[in-house]
Amino acid sequence: MGWTDYLDAHQSRFIDELCDFIRIPSVSAKPEHMADVRTAGQWVVDRLTAAGIENARMYDTDGHPVVCADWLHAGADKPTILIYGHFDVQPAEPFDLWTSPPFEPTIRGDRLYGRGATDDKGAMMIPILAAEALLAETGQLPVNVRFFFEGQEEIGSPDLPPWIEANPELLKADMIFSADGGQWDTETPQMVLALKGLTSLEVKVKGARADLHSGMHGGGVANPGMALAHLLASMKSADGRITVEGFYDDVIDLTEEDRAAIARVPWDEAAYLAQTGAPATHGEPGYTTRENLWGRPTLEVNGITCGWQGAGTKTVLPAEASAKITCRLVANQNPEKIFDLIAAHVEAHCPPGVTAEVSKNPGRADPFLVPAGHNATAIAGQVLEEVYGKTPYKTRAGGSIPVMSTLLDQLGLHAVMFAFGHDDENQHAPDEFFRLPTFRLGQTAYGRLMERLAG
Amino acid sequence: MGWTDYLDAHQSRFIDELCDFIRIPSVSAKPEHMADVRTAGQWVVDRLTAAGIENARMYDTDGHPVVCADWLHAGADKPTILIYGHFDVQPAEPFDLWTSPPFEPTIRGDRLYGRGATDDKGAMMIPILAAEALLAETGQLPVNVRFFFEGQEEIGSPDLPPWIEANPELLKADMIFSADGGQWDTETPQMVLALKGLTSLEVKVKGARADLHSGMHGGGVANPGMALAHLLASMKSADGRITVEGFYDDVIDLTEEDRAAIARVPWDEAAYLAQTGAPATHGEPGYTTRENLWGRPTLEVNGITCGWQGAGTKTVLPAEASAKITCRLVANQNPEKIFDLIAAHVEAHCPPGVTAEVSKNPGRADPFLVPAGHNATAIAGQVLEEVYGKTPYKTRAGGSIPVMSTLLDQLGLHAVMFAFGHDDENQHAPDEFFRLPTFRLGQTAYGRLMERLAG
Repeated sequence: MGWTDYLDAHQSRFIDELCDFIRIPSVSAKPEHMADVRTAGQWVVDRLTAAGIENARMYDTDGHPVVCADWLHAGADKPTILIYGHFDVQPAEPFDLWTSPPFEPTIRGDRLYGRGATDDKGAMMIPILAAEALLAETGQLPVNVRFFFEGQEEIGSPDLPPWIEANPELLKADMIFSADGGQWDTETPQMVLALKGLTSLEVKVKGARADLHSGMHGGGVANPGMALAHLLASMKSADGRITVEGFYDDVIDLTEEDRAAIARVPWDEAAYLAQTGAPATHGEPGYTTRENLWGRPTLEVNGITCGWQGAGTKTVLPAEASAKITCRLVANQNPEKIFDLIAAHVEAHCPPGVTAEVSKNPGRADPFLVPAGHNATAIAGQVLEEVYGKTPYKTRAGGSIPVMSTLLDQLGLHAVMFAFGHDDENQHAPDEFFRLPTFRLGQTAYGRLMERLAG
Repeated sequence: MGWTDYLDAHQSRFIDELCDFIRIPSVSAKPEHMADVRTAGQWVVDRLTAAGIENARMYDTDGHPVVCADWLHAGADKPTILIYGHFDVQPAEPFDLWTSPPFEPTIRGDRLYGRGATDDKGAMMIPILAAEALLAETGQLPVNVRFFFEGQEEIGSPDLPPWIEANPELLKADMIFSADGGQWDTETPQMVLALKGLTSLEVKVKGARADLHSGMHGGGVANPGMALAHLLASMKSADGRITVEGFYDDVIDLTEEDRAAIARVPWDEAAYLAQTGAPATHGEPGYTTRENLWGRPTLEVNGITCGWQGAGTKTVLPAEASAKITCRLVANQNPEKIFDLIAAHVEAHCPPGVTAEVSKNPGRADPFLVPAGHNATAIAGQVLEEVYGKTPYKTRAGGSIPVMSTLLDQLGLHAVMFAFGHDDENQHAPDEFFRLPTFRLGQTAYGRLMERLAG
């Protein structure tokens, strides 16, 4: 039988295997799950080996491990491609909002629910399965293939830059394809031409030495919760413009051509509101929602902690308050410069009666913009057009894949997003799911991509 | 021997008993401690009975119970006094900041450490012990005495108003003395002439239906954490003036005479900063720190909850954010009116892209101001002057004892604060303690108060 028949014949096993993979709670952000991330890495090593890929091995970094493997017997006249994905997942909290438990994968209809189902466990299995089918049915792969999977994408890949710099021979390739990313919708493919960069930080405001009685000390010393509110409010106007001094200085604004290309992609504001459940869209004034999502930098509060958060009333005047913040950056913003601007802003705007400090959190990424006329992008676009029967949209993504900018720095290669999730699959949220028909479609697409790259 | 000799002879036992009392974690704010609050109430019933007080009994309310008891054999020509205190305590979190565990009372030097040591378990035992000594040594009390102890002071006594209204016969008295409160310092007594009122509420801001990926949706929908920051910042200027429309309308401002009386009480700003550990004092502009602490209303954030609060980075755009707020009120502010003003303010200032709602939390108190020339206050002042050898300062308190305003409403009596804690004893904070010499001194003072009130 042909390799696509092989995929059909083994799909049920592939789904069972994906369920096994999801059951490993490889939450990279939580220290108590360090061993689970390692277990997931070992699962990937074993799965690659089972598929017929060679040299599958886990490598230590200063944090969570990476997994590399290769199959390099297509011949020197064939290109070598590097396929990227990640086996770590986001924390699953709040657990009580999941319909079925996050680490007990459950199929409802044609969807598989579980943390990591789409981001990125299901998606990163796709190229492994395509390679297995090709090897099983043809005895070889059309091109030389390297696999590179990591266990720290969800915390911003902090330990990858030195590891990549130290191990170029494991990653040497002519093109990079990322199995983390996604398609426009179940009918329509896309070529993702830009990813946002990332900087992650925490602002901590301190007042008194310890929590105080709010009656005895209210009016005597400043309230760090209120001071933090003033600081945060000073960073972004209520109508959505970031007011950190210098924040927009290095931004390459969208050209009229960029804005026209973005406007050609369908956008249904009502559907977006229905999807998110938000009462209204909200972004930087002067730009459409799509332009903000794709082409403008953001500053988002990820969490705030202060004082009493249990049930009922506790009449304390808290000793401190802190906020986690991530900024998504666009070309040509630099993560370190943005961090410094925010630190300077906090110092300049710290309200009276408290002290404030800014610290970096793990995670950084340079913004990433694929150059026009990029060859691997063009071929991937042809495969997607063939598989979907529709010309891909040219899009940008609001998300960041920090390792993409590192690979660009170290290997000089722009990665091509070639992945099969969809934006509505509750990535990073409760009830994350992956569409099983897409899981199958992606396997064909990756097989055809390898064939097309060979000739 | 005389009754003060009895107190000396039995002090070691009294301290052991106070330790037993502190070991009961009667945290009224936490549902999981409901049974412990009841256990503490039963402990009080047993201790009153052991002291020779009669009719000691626990009474149910709609929430935590109260305990009443009496000794009414002094004769109809003697006044009847009502002594108030509370057997519930504040939550002990954060546990890791305690030198010894909060519910394992520990003596270091002449201080007894533990949650509730001073507020109010140690303080409320004092009048019971004075009565025990008088009964043991003289066979009677100089006046008729009722005891009224409650188990919900630390959550604002939400269920007391209807219970007090329904049980006036248990509380009928000529004067009320509160064993919750404190003295100026170990050398100097005080007469507390005012308590602040209280209103407690929560502001919740909602955006999307669930937490979203901050990269995919940042710039698309509003961030409830940032919106809450704008809302909170709109309620109070960075320099400390409350900017909720109408908030100060009903405030009776401090007169020149009030300000002069306050200025006569010693104040050491450097010592206050050393005590609290705050980098600077901070309160409403135009008033001294002491005036703000005692005579001006406050609006304090008690806690903020939003999004990811675990270790590291989670790149979410949170679905909601909420803040707990308590306001301390002065005469003639009304807790319900202040709540309504804040709710209206939140509605008027809700940032775009989110919804905001305000809900009441348990706890209310009217501000409380003792009229000039109040008789019980004058006698208590004489006893304190005799015991301390020093004229009491006339002070006000920033804290609230909601039941005081309820007793005033229902019984028409202004309570006199006659209690022996000190402000530096970490009430509501880690390492709460009570000074054992004060514990002893208070027992003599309560005995003498009863004697003085008899003649």
